[in-house]
Amino acid sequence: MTNPNHPDLNRPDLNHPDAQTVRTAVSNALAEDRAAYDVTTRSTVPPEQQGKGAFVFREAGVLCGIELAREAFAQLSPDLRLDAAYEDGSPIEPGTTVATIAGPLAAMLSAERVALNFMQRLSGVASITREYVEEAARGGATRVVDTRKTTPGLRAFERYAVRCGGAHNHRDNLQDGVLIKDNHLAAAADRGATIADVVSAARESAAHTLRIEIEVDTPGQAAEAVAAGADIVLLDNMDPETMRPIVEATPTGVLFEASGGITLDTIRAVAATGVQLISVGALTHSAPSLDIGLDIEPA
Amino acid sequence: MTNPNHPDLNRPDLNHPDAQTVRTAVSNALAEDRAAYDVTTRSTVPPEQQGKGAFVFREAGVLCGIELAREAFAQLSPDLRLDAAYEDGSPIEPGTTVATIAGPLAAMLSAERVALNFMQRLSGVASITREYVEEAARGGATRVVDTRKTTPGLRAFERYAVRCGGAHNHRDNLQDGVLIKDNHLAAAADRGATIADVVSAARESAAHTLRIEIEVDTPGQAAEAVAAGADIVLLDNMDPETMRPIVEATPTGVLFEASGGITLDTIRAVAATGVQLISVGALTHSAPSLDIGLDIEPA
Amino acid sequence: MTNPNHPDLNRPDLNHPDAQTVRTAVSNALAEDRAAYDVTTRSTVPPEQQGKGAFVFREAGVLCGIELAREAFAQLSPDLRLDAAYEDGSPIEPGTTVATIAGPLAAMLSAERVALNFMQRLSGVASITREYVEEAARGGATRVVDTRKTTPGLRAFERYAVRCGGAHNHRDNLQDGVLIKDNHLAAAADRGATIADVVSAARESAAHTLRIEIEVDTPGQAAEAVAAGADIVLLDNMDPETMRPIVEATPTGVLFEASGGITLDTIRAVAATGVQLISVGALTHSAPSLDIGLDIEPA
Amino acid sequence: MTNPNHPDLNRPDLNHPDAQTVRTAVSNALAEDRAAYDVTTRSTVPPEQQGKGAFVFREAGVLCGIELAREAFAQLSPDLRLDAAYEDGSPIEPGTTVATIAGPLAAMLSAERVALNFMQRLSGVASITREYVEEAARGGATRVVDTRKTTPGLRAFERYAVRCGGAHNHRDNLQDGVLIKDNHLAAAADRGATIADVVSAARESAAHTLRIEIEVDTPGQAAEAVAAGADIVLLDNMDPETMRPIVEATPTGVLFEASGGITLDTIRAVAATGVQLISVGALTHSAPSLDIGLDIEPA
Amino acid sequence: MTNPNHPDLNRPDLNHPDAQTVRTAVSNALAEDRAAYDVTTRSTVPPEQQGKGAFVFREAGVLCGIELAREAFAQLSPDLRLDAAYEDGSPIEPGTTVATIAGPLAAMLSAERVALNFMQRLSGVASITREYVEEAARGGATRVVDTRKTTPGLRAFERYAVRCGGAHNHRDNLQDGVLIKDNHLAAAADRGATIADVVSAARESAAHTLRIEIEVDTPGQAAEAVAAGADIVLLDNMDPETMRPIVEATPTGVLFEASGGITLDTIRAVAATGVQLISVGALTHSAPSLDIGLDIEPA
Amino acid sequence: MTNPNHPDLNRPDLNHPDAQTVRTAVSNALAEDRAAYDVTTRSTVPPEQQGKGAFVFREAGVLCGIELAREAFAQLSPDLRLDAAYEDGSPIEPGTTVATIAGPLAAMLSAERVALNFMQRLSGVASITREYVEEAARGGATRVVDTRKTTPGLRAFERYAVRCGGAHNHRDNLQDGVLIKDNHLAAAADRGATIADVVSAARESAAHTLRIEIEVDTPGQAAEAVAAGADIVLLDNMDPETMRPIVEATPTGVLFEASGGITLDTIRAVAATGVQLISVGALTHSAPSLDIGLDIEPA
Repeated sequence: MTNPNHPDLNRPDLNHPDAQTVRTAVSNALAEDRAAYDVTTRSTVPPEQQGKGAFVFREAGVLCGIELAREAFAQLSPDLRLDAAYEDGSPIEPGTTVATIAGPLAAMLSAERVALNFMQRLSGVASITREYVEEAARGGATRVVDTRKTTPGLRAFERYAVRCGGAHNHRDNLQDGVLIKDNHLAAAADRGATIADVVSAARESAAHTLRIEIEVDTPGQAAEAVAAGADIVLLDNMDPETMRPIVEATPTGVLFEASGGITLDTIRAVAATGVQLISVGALTHSAPSLDIGLDIEPA
Repeated sequence: MTNPNHPDLNRPDLNHPDAQTVRTAVSNALAEDRAAYDVTTRSTVPPEQQGKGAFVFREAGVLCGIELAREAFAQLSPDLRLDAAYEDGSPIEPGTTVATIAGPLAAMLSAERVALNFMQRLSGVASITREYVEEAARGGATRVVDTRKTTPGLRAFERYAVRCGGAHNHRDNLQDGVLIKDNHLAAAADRGATIADVVSAARESAAHTLRIEIEVDTPGQAAEAVAAGADIVLLDNMDPETMRPIVEATPTGVLFEASGGITLDTIRAVAATGVQLISVGALTHSAPSLDIGLDIEPA
Repeated sequence: MTNPNHPDLNRPDLNHPDAQTVRTAVSNALAEDRAAYDVTTRSTVPPEQQGKGAFVFREAGVLCGIELAREAFAQLSPDLRLDAAYEDGSPIEPGTTVATIAGPLAAMLSAERVALNFMQRLSGVASITREYVEEAARGGATRVVDTRKTTPGLRAFERYAVRCGGAHNHRDNLQDGVLIKDNHLAAAADRGATIADVVSAARESAAHTLRIEIEVDTPGQAAEAVAAGADIVLLDNMDPETMRPIVEATPTGVLFEASGGITLDTIRAVAATGVQLISVGALTHSAPSLDIGLDIEPA
Repeated sequence: MTNPNHPDLNRPDLNHPDAQTVRTAVSNALAEDRAAYDVTTRSTVPPEQQGKGAFVFREAGVLCGIELAREAFAQLSPDLRLDAAYEDGSPIEPGTTVATIAGPLAAMLSAERVALNFMQRLSGVASITREYVEEAARGGATRVVDTRKTTPGLRAFERYAVRCGGAHNHRDNLQDGVLIKDNHLAAAADRGATIADVVSAARESAAHTLRIEIEVDTPGQAAEAVAAGADIVLLDNMDPETMRPIVEATPTGVLFEASGGITLDTIRAVAATGVQLISVGALTHSAPSLDIGLDIEPA
Repeated sequence: MTNPNHPDLNRPDLNHPDAQTVRTAVSNALAEDRAAYDVTTRSTVPPEQQGKGAFVFREAGVLCGIELAREAFAQLSPDLRLDAAYEDGSPIEPGTTVATIAGPLAAMLSAERVALNFMQRLSGVASITREYVEEAARGGATRVVDTRKTTPGLRAFERYAVRCGGAHNHRDNLQDGVLIKDNHLAAAADRGATIADVVSAARESAAHTLRIEIEVDTPGQAAEAVAAGADIVLLDNMDPETMRPIVEATPTGVLFEASGGITLDTIRAVAATGVQLISVGALTHSAPSLDIGLDIEPA
Repeated sequence: MTNPNHPDLNRPDLNHPDAQTVRTAVSNALAEDRAAYDVTTRSTVPPEQQGKGAFVFREAGVLCGIELAREAFAQLSPDLRLDAAYEDGSPIEPGTTVATIAGPLAAMLSAERVALNFMQRLSGVASITREYVEEAARGGATRVVDTRKTTPGLRAFERYAVRCGGAHNHRDNLQDGVLIKDNHLAAAADRGATIADVVSAARESAAHTLRIEIEVDTPGQAAEAVAAGADIVLLDNMDPETMRPIVEATPTGVLFEASGGITLDTIRAVAATGVQLISVGALTHSAPSLDIGLDIEPA
């Protein structure tokens, strides 16, 4: 169901991770929890007893992970039916029931923790992302993007949660984007190579379908990177006053990405510098779980 | 290397996840990041160039994850050598170098993010755990334990981080512990079964090696659970004033576990009630990453 | 279909291994037999030819494995339909048809061996288990339990067969139960540690949800174990005359498990000692296959 | 170490399953037993304590599985060293120590059960096989062969155990041999096809590298099969008096395999009929575990 | 749909690789192409847009791989429906539409390359095979067979394509056939063993269900192999004039296989020598992709 | 060993697929061939017999795949040692020995086919690639690139072979490059969207690290694409006379890729048009195996 109050989030390109990825992630999580061998439920709830449950937001936030929850229940019993009242990406008020579940009670109880672990974590990422996106929008037109600082094993899902929160993704992995960082430049300098040499080497070796992005620490380096033909310049740990003149002095066609320790307190000012991109590691590496409950009762 | 200043944490039973689990987790994370296909590093750093790096704590916390970092580097190059100055479980001051790494620079750069993603996350869990453990100790002799609210796919590691932080583990999964929760009781009640019936059914069905734990919401339920022969009674979302008389009125042999929304602000008072166990979901579901940097330079 | 003649075996808690475990075990077995590349059947039976078959018990025993057989046929052809006349756990007389199968003859022939290999082996375990259970019941009220002496790779299924035979399971694996054995005690003694030290160390380290079980060889050790607070005492290789006074002299609350070389000839006397548990390795390590045939004919 | 007393069993072609198959089987078995999470041993035996152990035959039999035991210990600790005094295939007297193990005691205890489960089962198969082989040899020169009635998942190992016992293997799976059974013939008959038609169809379709074997129930069918050009004729459930004239009346070049319910009591007479092959399902489907102990002590 | 114009190719024993093998191969190929993360299609084609497509042969050839194409589309969307106008093994004229596809356009575009990669390659193998088969048939009645010179990972499919082209398969792997090659003979000679010794050793060790094939280079060796009792003799790299007298001089019952550098130019003369088998590595190791297009349009 | 006669091919950035990918591919290929169960070699070559072999080019070409061959032998025996006289990417004359192998003869024979299957195929791709690269260089300075028309399962290796042949790689998969093809444009047109709309949608949705490439059929479309801000324009199936004015009329900064049916006969003229890139599907979809032999003898 779409959410008519927030049409901007009903984006056609949320691009949910594919069904096979969902199946595998859920299957592994259920195995990790040995959910099919739930000694408590098996001994206390007969298989024929039915139940119903409601996923209720205990605090405000952005919903994410409904399909993972659905899959967790489905893998334990094909007779469990989850009905979603909201779709991923919807902002939710406290007390709202976002989905209901009905069917065999025993299977419902055995899958509950896995379903909630996914949904609480991903909704946590989506929720904090949305805060960053809204605050950045107050500063200027910019694209908030994530980083590779994701939970090992959950990158595809956390990137999806970032999209649900209204932000964009940076490169997915080390193969599908070129980002020359300070350490690459230091390595080059140690061999007597310049920024121009490095950009040129990357251009020669990488597929022609990839842009060349380079991280710089100073205005001087930024100018050197632009002169070397970099497509994107990452301004690392600069304050807004340093960034603004760099952006303004550069001909169009080059993109600037601000990065490094940007918080909810500072992102508005950063956005106001005119940078096209702001990357925020905290979207994925430190988002607290969102408090979502599953209220279950016999049916 | 042991940490002589905190001998209480050099526990012989930290029980690191086994080598195969470490290898698989790291291998999957490197594949997720396509670290072996790092187009940037491959095109800008020649394979023969050497480098060195230092893992530096940017903030205070408890170290956890050093073996995962070691494995990440080793999988990309057998010539990368990590030397740890501290072992997992050590409390670390800001600015401290906890480990150094030396060897081929290109492989070091390609593995960096995976190594840090593990170490920052697990150290985050260990650090917040230690805060809870120390605060609880101020209230009384109690065992702080984790919950099953872990990151899907990382449970073995997060439970280890909990141990590194000085707390204990609750059951690992639904098979290796019996915990009759409110929903199991509600299901029973709906069928006309009593708490005594449920405890008895669990006792009959579960292996004799497992204790029977039961979650209750009221003093009356607690008394009923004790009378039914439960080995452990989980007191859910009760305030300390409610819990204390329950604990005091019960003959020895029954364990009490406080649970539900316990925070750093409240754990001391909870511990003072005399409960033997306090479980805290926040140890794993909402620990922020610890800020640890890897300072690299050509060698 | 339930078996009205033996209602005691239609237990709601037989807890069949979950569908994913069944699928994987069967899929691996079919691959091991390269059942999809059956050169004989492919060249001699056209795919459109239909057939029917009957699973017939050639000797008396307890049925177990019907779902594994069903899965084996289903994986080779979705058009094969197995109808079970009896359910797992039912005692069967010689000459009885327990299930019929109908559909494409070629796929039926290619799956036959895998289906029978599972069913004959598991029914063998269930059948011998039932003999032990019935004989023990003649001696006293006791719980017959299995051991970890199972076939590598088949533990979940053999434990299920044990349940079908009317016995209970001991711990599943080294993680979900504490059992301090003679070698652990010898290791402790070599370090100067007492039984009490060992029980205490296990209590401190293990999750609070696990009972502490300890194996002893003499009445003196048994008394020491009880004094140390062990929850369960395993009496290893003792004769009934030795066990009875130990059991009788111990306050209620402690469980005793008899173990070690117990046979169909001796289990009755062992049960009569009053031990609450008797573990029998032979349930799984030496059960002969039950003779079950699949009589096939063109339809 | 070879066994000079039984040189006939030191065959160069025992062909142990390859290292990767061994690694995987052992790794799966250790995971099934969660041997790396042995809560008892971890809490009661410190990692630095050393131990030694001896594998002792409690009854007479043929040794098989020494490499699986070695692998089980090695996977839990590279410091565990197993020294074999006898090699697989050696007949062993009761009380003999066939191998010793030394190294970290904790890892030794955690791997013990998996090592024994493999060794006891495979030695059981090898031991009963040797009895059949020796008894058959008293009747005549014949080749005892196994069947596909093996434990799902363990076929490669049980076939190896059969070779260790002195017998030969039949086809490994449905792809690498042609065996037209009664059901294939019944299917053909139902379509109006003769034995000759079936043999011809198999010859046309199967790779030219495979012989055509056909199962028959009567002397008449046997003659028909020979006339149809079958390379091997399986005489199913015939008594020796029926088989002998069939074998004697047939020109050389055709092989006869006796099969069906052959026991230690009957195999000698069957061998005396002149059949070149005798297949015995009981070698693998009903061999009891051999009683082998691992005596461990602190070192 | 069968192809009435070429009834000889509608063979009942084409034996398509089984469904699980198809699923796995396609799933791996889609993952390799990250088809579920097609950034282009996801951003430019809305999920609800429908489309249709036609697989059109751009050149003449034999169709093979239709089920792999069907599976590729199905894995990306259960709503994609492929209708085949011809079945595998059918000879196709240029310009012919062999199958149509309809359903969600985005999924169709994302699966297109994987579907074509399979179909073009396998149809290439089937097409060249048919040329060899037809040319050999002009020389005499012989069986054209493939070799183990297949693409790693695709052997089951390429062997199927060979069958679709009208040829037969040689052994599938090193386990399911005995082929003593020049190197085995050289190894034997180096130890002083004769051809007769080697044949005898193979006979003793291999399962009785396998024929013994031996590769020879000279008429003398061929005679020696026949005398030693070889079932099949592979004549390696001999010209037809050398082969014919060998074949003619040998009593019936022994099969001859010509092998080594046989091309479309020479196979007719080789077939005319009377050899029963001709193996051709080029069927699989050098078949060019067949030019098949997928013409897509919005529906 | 480098090849001093062809220094231009000793490129530091050939970027061999990583060790884990090599191990898995080889392990799967050996399992497919059941190389560890080579019945012929096991029965005819004793394990202790030693041998040596030489990989000899029977025709001219570019070497590729030496590490896969090394791995195949190593997996079957750690005692097999391969010494390479040339490295991947070296042009080789007929009759040249590119590598030698020494060690246990039986393992060498069992691994031979897998080693050759990889090396012959990859050298075939590298060899034909080099022909295209050299011919294109005669026409102008352009980059020859591959396509996604690779063998399912072997993409990483075939892309490596393309690099060994002197060409570059296009995008690896559907995630790491944006290429708007004719079907995407047709889908857009059907919805009333223009080329500019499509480019804009891709830009909005794709990561900022990716360039936008678009396929066009006519000069008009090409101009439209350039005006829409495409970074790369693929000119599909145009003749050189059509392409040249497009390239010349476009301001620098936009890249042109010629594609569609380009052969060794036409690539020189295409390169002369000034396009920066030429993609050739035939590099991977139709390269014949290179004829490389392994001459083995007992040592």
